[in-house]
Amino acid sequence: MHTDLVAALDIGGTKIAGALVDGHGRLQARAQRATPAREDGETVMRAVEEVLAELSASPLWGRAVALGIGSAGPVDASTGTVSPVNVPGWRDYPLVERVRAAAGGLPVELIGDGVAITAAEHWQGAARGHDNALCMVVSTGVGGGLVLNGRLHPGPTGNAGHIGHISVDLDGDPCPCGARGCVERIASGPNIARRAVENGWVPGPDGDTSAAAVAAAARAGDPVAVASFERAAQALAAGIAATATLVEIDIAVVGGGVGKAGDVLFAPLRKALSDYATLSFVRRLAVVPAQMGTDAGLVGAAAAALARRADREDPAAAGV
Amino acid sequence: MHTDLVAALDIGGTKIAGALVDGHGRLQARAQRATPAREDGETVMRAVEEVLAELSASPLWGRAVALGIGSAGPVDASTGTVSPVNVPGWRDYPLVERVRAAAGGLPVELIGDGVAITAAEHWQGAARGHDNALCMVVSTGVGGGLVLNGRLHPGPTGNAGHIGHISVDLDGDPCPCGARGCVERIASGPNIARRAVENGWVPGPDGDTSAAAVAAAARAGDPVAVASFERAAQALAAGIAATATLVEIDIAVVGGGVGKAGDVLFAPLRKALSDYATLSFVRRLAVVPAQMGTDAGLVGAAAAALARRADREDPAAAGV
Repeated sequence: MHTDLVAALDIGGTKIAGALVDGHGRLQARAQRATPAREDGETVMRAVEEVLAELSASPLWGRAVALGIGSAGPVDASTGTVSPVNVPGWRDYPLVERVRAAAGGLPVELIGDGVAITAAEHWQGAARGHDNALCMVVSTGVGGGLVLNGRLHPGPTGNAGHIGHISVDLDGDPCPCGARGCVERIASGPNIARRAVENGWVPGPDGDTSAAAVAAAARAGDPVAVASFERAAQALAAGIAATATLVEIDIAVVGGGVGKAGDVLFAPLRKALSDYATLSFVRRLAVVPAQMGTDAGLVGAAAAALARRADREDPAAAGV
Repeated sequence: MHTDLVAALDIGGTKIAGALVDGHGRLQARAQRATPAREDGETVMRAVEEVLAELSASPLWGRAVALGIGSAGPVDASTGTVSPVNVPGWRDYPLVERVRAAAGGLPVELIGDGVAITAAEHWQGAARGHDNALCMVVSTGVGGGLVLNGRLHPGPTGNAGHIGHISVDLDGDPCPCGARGCVERIASGPNIARRAVENGWVPGPDGDTSAAAVAAAARAGDPVAVASFERAAQALAAGIAATATLVEIDIAVVGGGVGKAGDVLFAPLRKALSDYATLSFVRRLAVVPAQMGTDAGLVGAAAAALARRADREDPAAAGV
């Protein structure tokens, strides 16, 4: 029996991935190109078109009923445009219009990459079965997305859940975004590593000063490395508690490279959360590691397109 | 022609107000008692029952189709209980069950008071026509509520939008809630006044050290008074920007006693907002004064009950 598929694109500063995704979140066909991130906008678009051409050459393509795009931000779902920080050739680039033309007129849904990851964790991963959830990616940057009342909450422009750029330290260090003391400015991988080095942590003989190396040192008991993770955990906890206090969530899912640090991150994170999530209705909040792998962006883009399609067909019952 | 009415209760630490509200948000009958806040729980409940008895004696009572309660928090809509900080006799008090019994079995909807104010501003006030809004009360405390996707977002327990207790200064002063650097700890009326006095502001001959007196001094150019309002504005701006960055709102409505300070608050608030609301999708955020008066809690409780009723009848179309 031929069941419906959804085409998905995951557009980042390093790669452009595409897939045909079935109703169980499984990838039935895939294609990928490196992102020519330093080239002009049309060159970047050609890489997207090559991915789509490869997918549409699949015998399964005829079953695709919608196309979802998860893109590095900022995105603007209301205008169908994207301006990814790491792809300077795309500024207010009409990605939805171009993809729709290249994909034979399929309905196209655009969301930010943090929202896509969230859709994937809610559909197939750690947030499954939770009606109110925050999912985060803590990595080079800090991104996220929200599920509210059982449904993905992309917001009007597809950027909601941008927890990396809420200020938890209003007098804190300037953030590249223009504000001060943002969660990302304290808790991202590069900032964990920077703080450890500034406070006297000395890397091993391989000279590796990545956050992963700091995590390894923390696991071995290095107090400066431990302190840098504790500070990141504190900022993440303040941000997660703020989110729970504002919208009521019962689970926070943390993924990304820093999320993989394990207890070095999660132990101080849970402790700090009890300091900041104090009101009765947020005290039971759980914090868990992400479950989805590197295909999360594709699976989530597909989930968002599916949910939007169900929404159009039956507004009351939708809610992947 | 007899149109439907909604019964509303606004329960605070000072007064218990009740009304019958029509479909235009007009109060057609009202009743009120002082809150016997220091008495035992049953004595407080008797005051609520007196308000309901007075309302139900009205010839209009037969047209009431639902009852909405906005209560000082914390509330728990999932269990129908309330634990208002300023009413110690009520802890996990089964208010919904008791009110339903006293109100002849009408369907009862319970929300927090910040959520009620928000429902009122969205229905009849400054947030009218906005699908994504934050409404705040800045007064002795700082409360709030959210409208998302055109609908009130009370959250599962009726407490969402609790912006007063998100931390914007993770190393800041301890807040009575147990966290540090909460918006309320910096921006509430008593904290504005305290900070002015601590920094050397001298009240007038009447000895008035209220936030209103500090506002008057700020309007007259007193630099310490001005600085205290600027600091409050900075904390409010960080909190509003965090909310916009997390859920995407296009308007923030500020009411309450401090909200009435006018330009002394709103000028530095708008300036600080440009410092913290930096991402493209939050830059156009407007900040405006509240429009609803002292009946906002009643009007909002009625709005929430009406919306819930519409929801039950037609899940797809509801959305007061």
